[in-house]
Amino acid sequence: MNTDYINIVNSNLEKYLKIEYPNIIYESMNYSILGGGKRVRPCLLLGSYNAFGGNKIEEAVPFACAIEMIHTYSLIHDDLPGMDDDDYRRGKLSNHKVFGEGMAILAGDAFLNYAYEIMLNFSIEKFEKKYFLAMQKIAEAAGLKGMIKGQVLDIISENKQIDEKTLLSIDKNKTAKILQASMLAGGILANASKEDLIKIEEAGYYLGISFQIKDDLLDIQSTTEVLGKPINSDIKNNKSTYISIYGEKKAENDLKKYTDKTIEILNELKLMNEFLQDFILKLLERIN
Amino acid sequence: MNTDYINIVNSNLEKYLKIEYPNIIYESMNYSILGGGKRVRPCLLLGSYNAFGGNKIEEAVPFACAIEMIHTYSLIHDDLPGMDDDDYRRGKLSNHKVFGEGMAILAGDAFLNYAYEIMLNFSIEKFEKKYFLAMQKIAEAAGLKGMIKGQVLDIISENKQIDEKTLLSIDKNKTAKILQASMLAGGILANASKEDLIKIEEAGYYLGISFQIKDDLLDIQSTTEVLGKPINSDIKNNKSTYISIYGEKKAENDLKKYTDKTIEILNELKLMNEFLQDFILKLLERIN
Repeated sequence: MNTDYINIVNSNLEKYLKIEYPNIIYESMNYSILGGGKRVRPCLLLGSYNAFGGNKIEEAVPFACAIEMIHTYSLIHDDLPGMDDDDYRRGKLSNHKVFGEGMAILAGDAFLNYAYEIMLNFSIEKFEKKYFLAMQKIAEAAGLKGMIKGQVLDIISENKQIDEKTLLSIDKNKTAKILQASMLAGGILANASKEDLIKIEEAGYYLGISFQIKDDLLDIQSTTEVLGKPINSDIKNNKSTYISIYGEKKAENDLKKYTDKTIEILNELKLMNEFLQDFILKLLERIN
Repeated sequence: MNTDYINIVNSNLEKYLKIEYPNIIYESMNYSILGGGKRVRPCLLLGSYNAFGGNKIEEAVPFACAIEMIHTYSLIHDDLPGMDDDDYRRGKLSNHKVFGEGMAILAGDAFLNYAYEIMLNFSIEKFEKKYFLAMQKIAEAAGLKGMIKGQVLDIISENKQIDEKTLLSIDKNKTAKILQASMLAGGILANASKEDLIKIEEAGYYLGISFQIKDDLLDIQSTTEVLGKPINSDIKNNKSTYISIYGEKKAENDLKKYTDKTIEILNELKLMNEFLQDFILKLLERIN
């Protein structure tokens, strides 16, 4: 199922990004979004859609692709010299190292705008409220009250000793909200009840925090080869992480604790289809 | 009327951008969008809305503000060292010169995302198709088939002798399409007929091209003080312009020709309310 979802997402991304004139921008976008990536957000969206009984996957795919585009835009901009200045991503040179800074800025901008075009065009065609509501959740999670807020907090916290509350706010906004939105959008598209959406939002929150703890752990426990980007980058960038604040042991424990909470809620919801169970456990045992 | 529109847009932008935590991103966004700017796109949107008989301005204002945010995001990113590397804008230091590159990238991203949030939230609340259609036109003009395409062509044409067709494509995509979309969105929101929308699109096209010719002329004819940014920037950046390709005299003539065409179409449409007439003429006689 996991591979199925990934294949569906990849083939649709390819279709959306067929090379046109001027080729260079499409090549730059293809470079960053194709041939790599775990497709975590699209898989969560499609998995949640399926778990809530959705059975017309083609109505969820545009949103899954859009959310991956939003994720990719944030990575491209994040790697820029003016931001984290990272030369590698997913085992390859960062976008700006290949296409230059100007084209990388535009590729990120293009992904963000295109994500909205795709969701909007599809939603207008169908003209059912749930589509616009799914889009709204994604937009909110990507914006000033979500991912961008997290990025800003991240930047202004560099080279500073931050407290636990600030760290949690960074992790919540930068990472958790878009994972939450992925699961939530899946539920909305599958016509889940309001009560269930509240629960899935909670599960997405715990998953998001544990996902970030795992990221922080990998940054010190993995190798550059396996991770596809330099390890110890948080230390290099003087960033506070779950580990610099709580230590490695508590990070490991909390990773387990939050994962358990995620699974617990999904079980309560009787939502634990094989895919989600497996996918979430794999996410937290992943090596890159 | 012009000042009225500008005041309405400004006070709404201020509301949308009330400072919140983390302050710095709101300050950066406020810095670039408030206290300056001719509000060309919002005024065209509101003027067109009014000319087509729209009389609930509050239903057009969110779109007018969103389009100004999209314009502002493009300016902030355009000024970055990786793009045009411009230190001044509207008589002040560029965003990245004040807030740093990272925050400028994020402020641009935030404007683009927020523009969609504003349009989407409003449209969902009302849930009438015309709102989503107006949003769709704006999204298309801002994206890979519009502004971003123009930016890409602009970058890859630097330091090159380009032909007339390429120049027209740059001007059309980078400048004209979003001006077109402004007028078109105003028409859509005011329930204009399909036939009228086709005409207003055409008028917007001619207006867009003449607007760009005027921009190119000002770059050589104005002064840094009046223009609020260094003159001769196109020459500095080795950019082909209407003037480098056709010469100043033809540029002046074509400016007049395209302006006349714009006015002609609006007259045909019997749309020439006092505001639009005045606004368009002023745009083309402007000194900055």
